[in-house]
Amino acid sequence: MLGRTYDKEICSAARALEIVGERWSLLILRNAAFAGMTRFTEFQKSLDIAPNVLAARLDSFVETGLMSKSDAGGAHETYHLTKKGLDFTPVIVALTEWGDRWAAPDGTPIVYEHEGCGGRVRHELTCGKCGERPRLQEVTARKTAVMTRLQARRGTRTARSR
Amino acid sequence: MLGRTYDKEICSAARALEIVGERWSLLILRNAAFAGMTRFTEFQKSLDIAPNVLAARLDSFVETGLMSKSDAGGAHETYHLTKKGLDFTPVIVALTEWGDRWAAPDGTPIVYEHEGCGGRVRHELTCGKCGERPRLQEVTARKTAVMTRLQARRGTRTARSR
Repeated sequence: MLGRTYDKEICSAARALEIVGERWSLLILRNAAFAGMTRFTEFQKSLDIAPNVLAARLDSFVETGLMSKSDAGGAHETYHLTKKGLDFTPVIVALTEWGDRWAAPDGTPIVYEHEGCGGRVRHELTCGKCGERPRLQEVTARKTAVMTRLQARRGTRTARSR
Repeated sequence: MLGRTYDKEICSAARALEIVGERWSLLILRNAAFAGMTRFTEFQKSLDIAPNVLAARLDSFVETGLMSKSDAGGAHETYHLTKKGLDFTPVIVALTEWGDRWAAPDGTPIVYEHEGCGGRVRHELTCGKCGERPRLQEVTARKTAVMTRLQARRGTRTARSR
């Protein structure tokens, strides 16, 4: 398990970063999701990272349930995205699109496609009420009752520890 | 400028991570985008991070064009998201939604809303051809001519450097 880096945060984005925010993590998930990689040696060769770092990332993905590991043992072991791991792909698509717009001076190196129909896959924000794509300035965050409860619980704990 | 951590990668997601992938970066952007924070002291107090780390992140955002800094000087300086920085918010929404589904056992602490109509804002992948939301297993990555050109250029450079 990775350290609870953002322990004071009551925030799902922070929780997500604790699971996938280490260096190389997202590129490993990318290669599993979009290049179909499953073997340690494939990840290692494609990313050219230190084996101990790769091993730590894969172990942590297995531990946090993003990947499952075959029980073949040794070099034959394979790592497969679980539903939880596969569900992360939209974040990678969103990140890629931002990079395409703002950090790809030579143009878009890869595009995401819908297998079968061959259409271009894009990510977008939509409003569940009016159906529009909201302007980014108009997207706000609202605390829920869950947040209020968690903040109250945390406040109580802090008071007790004094 | 952050180090080119993923220098060998021809990938917009990797380029994006070089700009926003450092520890705390995304939470700083989150607080700027959704909590309206602009001042060093606001970020520092809300995140409880070391001032030198926060200063490095904000400087890097200014350098990479995600934020602009007012020229008030000293403690009165304010940091504002540029168009490039604001454009990153969909990635934060996508990350939050994943965290809500997979790392929020107590429930969703915040929801994103469309200011004005008050509807819930969500992130989704859509196919530009058939208009469907593709199943995640059916989203594939295809290299473009840009990638082919960049790989060829890189191959030439590698051959020359031998």
